[in-house]
Amino acid sequence: MKFGGTSVATLDRIRRAAKRVGVEVAKGYDVIVIVSAMSGKTNELVGWVNETSPLHDAREYDAVVSSGENVTAGLMALTLQEMDVPARSWQGWQVPVQTTSAHSAARIEAIPPENIMAKFADGMKVAVVAGFQGVSPEGRITTLGRGGSDTTAVAFAASFGAERCDIYTDVDGVYTTDPRVESKARKLDKISFEEMLELASLGAKVLQTRSVELAMRYKVKLRVLSSFEEQSDEAGTLVCDEEEIMESNVVAGIAFSRDEAKMTLVSVADRPGIAASIFGALSDGGVNVDMIVQNIAEEGRTDMTWSCPVDQVQRANLAMQKAADDGVINYQELIADEAVAKVSVVGIGMRSHTGVAAKMFKVLSDEGVNIKVITTSEIKISVLIDRKYMELAVQALHDAFELDKPKT
Amino acid sequence: MKFGGTSVATLDRIRRAAKRVGVEVAKGYDVIVIVSAMSGKTNELVGWVNETSPLHDAREYDAVVSSGENVTAGLMALTLQEMDVPARSWQGWQVPVQTTSAHSAARIEAIPPENIMAKFADGMKVAVVAGFQGVSPEGRITTLGRGGSDTTAVAFAASFGAERCDIYTDVDGVYTTDPRVESKARKLDKISFEEMLELASLGAKVLQTRSVELAMRYKVKLRVLSSFEEQSDEAGTLVCDEEEIMESNVVAGIAFSRDEAKMTLVSVADRPGIAASIFGALSDGGVNVDMIVQNIAEEGRTDMTWSCPVDQVQRANLAMQKAADDGVINYQELIADEAVAKVSVVGIGMRSHTGVAAKMFKVLSDEGVNIKVITTSEIKISVLIDRKYMELAVQALHDAFELDKPKT
Repeated sequence: MKFGGTSVATLDRIRRAAKRVGVEVAKGYDVIVIVSAMSGKTNELVGWVNETSPLHDAREYDAVVSSGENVTAGLMALTLQEMDVPARSWQGWQVPVQTTSAHSAARIEAIPPENIMAKFADGMKVAVVAGFQGVSPEGRITTLGRGGSDTTAVAFAASFGAERCDIYTDVDGVYTTDPRVESKARKLDKISFEEMLELASLGAKVLQTRSVELAMRYKVKLRVLSSFEEQSDEAGTLVCDEEEIMESNVVAGIAFSRDEAKMTLVSVADRPGIAASIFGALSDGGVNVDMIVQNIAEEGRTDMTWSCPVDQVQRANLAMQKAADDGVINYQELIADEAVAKVSVVGIGMRSHTGVAAKMFKVLSDEGVNIKVITTSEIKISVLIDRKYMELAVQALHDAFELDKPKT
Repeated sequence: MKFGGTSVATLDRIRRAAKRVGVEVAKGYDVIVIVSAMSGKTNELVGWVNETSPLHDAREYDAVVSSGENVTAGLMALTLQEMDVPARSWQGWQVPVQTTSAHSAARIEAIPPENIMAKFADGMKVAVVAGFQGVSPEGRITTLGRGGSDTTAVAFAASFGAERCDIYTDVDGVYTTDPRVESKARKLDKISFEEMLELASLGAKVLQTRSVELAMRYKVKLRVLSSFEEQSDEAGTLVCDEEEIMESNVVAGIAFSRDEAKMTLVSVADRPGIAASIFGALSDGGVNVDMIVQNIAEEGRTDMTWSCPVDQVQRANLAMQKAADDGVINYQELIADEAVAKVSVVGIGMRSHTGVAAKMFKVLSDEGVNIKVITTSEIKISVLIDRKYMELAVQALHDAFELDKPKT
């Protein structure tokens, strides 16, 4: 059971979370609880670190910001003890949660279960583990990157062969799209790992992408549910293997990302390896390129178009200028359209159902929305459109694919 | 170098403290810096623990409250790095600071210097260590009790054979008495371990008693100085062996404790072992008895008088009532005088100079102050007096022993 920052923001909320843990203990389960820092605490610590040292040593950053989770873990263990549930807290190094040395973005390498299992054998019913943190081979404290507590939870579930991994958060599950944009958005009872992965990486902030990857690889049954609503066995959304989803649905959900930019490098001298030169330079410049389109132009010159977060346009300009100065590329101009958004339709049904793309394009066309760039994967179609049409496009697609209606 | 909570209360103060560390590094020293939590942080954490669980598991208390020091240690290391001083933070378990398992009041058993020395050999100039914490043989986090960072500092100085142990705090040294009570109080340049120990245990809050004991045992040169004033080699007060103090002074300082109570158990049936019965019961009842006087009364009965903190009077009443109910003791009544204070004159010179007690009693008598109880040790005379005369007594004694005048 993992509780996020808003679910443990106050002592009262920690008590409420502890009661949910108590319900599972009463059913006979041994429970591993993963906790985040009380909401706001990590931001406060990050602020201090950045103010102290803008280009900080990541090892010290990790030592400082990991402390918030330690506080919650201890308080949660005490709260459970007050309810007569035998519990104790574990910091990452005590388990130990063994990670790489990539401070602030470490990857979990192993979680030997022996220490915690020995305590379960001794009568402990709940191990409360500080999320988001681990220990490097050098014995330094590491953190997994923001949102890393989801990954901690899934990794524990995999290492301990847990029956389920329940992620308690401030929303009650995964929706067909963001209810703030489409009021008819519907909570999904189940979603496949693949779909969740696309939705997570497309900007749905319910689960950290890495935690879904990990759950998929180790077949961890992942459930997302709200810590603020009544609990039931059907609560929330189950993220699981597609075989476990009986209903056939073509489209599971619609994701979107508001703050995109479309950039076009006009009239680039074309030669073998030119794409590698451009995107290598952008990557070195810290630009996260998403969609890529190449238009064949005439006389040995081409246009190259990509999308990236709108706040990286300046970096992209600098990177291309530098590449031109270095003689790596040669182009006429770099045009940025900073008023675009990305809308994506995701669903494993696309593998077997044709016509999803055609239907998507027709819906947008009927609404007068011009498509600027298209990319597709096996279970996803993404388009770049003018930002001002984003809400309209999401609503029209939600309607057209009948996502407001329960699957049968 | 140890910096207390007020000396690291903000990022600015951490920077100021780091500059002092930088001065020592520039002189060629390798430095171990011990830091407390930013002031107020530990109280906040203790408050959360107490609200969560009034009778808390001390192991979880330790896991929670130790986090404040970890934050300061990381921030101090980052601040030093910003000044181009090679530094890193160490949490108790990383050093490791090996302690007993007496959670919340653990004692340091050993500090193997190998890990930190290896880093010094690698070029690290400053090890920033989170004070107040350690690790038990079971691998749980322990704390040393409030004020424990002083003890951490002295223990490191002893284990590493440090040339000096500088305790930076919000006062600029040890005074002949509290300047808030006697404006003519004078800062001492030097004081012996024995005197400091008496002053610390008598209520002068400059240093934790245990840290002075440890410094005395391991001959650690201890200096108390202000982190808010300009630094110089003569700053603060040096706590050292009495052989290093050339000036002969009979009285070093005057300590006092305002909130004392005097209790008298009237007409106790006297028999061998009656004192053990009374004080055993008080100890079991959580009463910290300080001074003890027994008056011989008549016909096999006696009066027993003791002093204790005024907020423990109720506990003492309960403990004596219970002992009477259990048939362990038999007494007529228990009288509490809750308006007394303790004033003590401390000085190693008393060992060789007679007449200090006589002079003290005459000074108090001349001021019309009645003495209720007297206790003495080799280098200390303490008296209980009416609380309303406390300031008067301190000032009169300070004058009489000429403590405002520098020793020659």
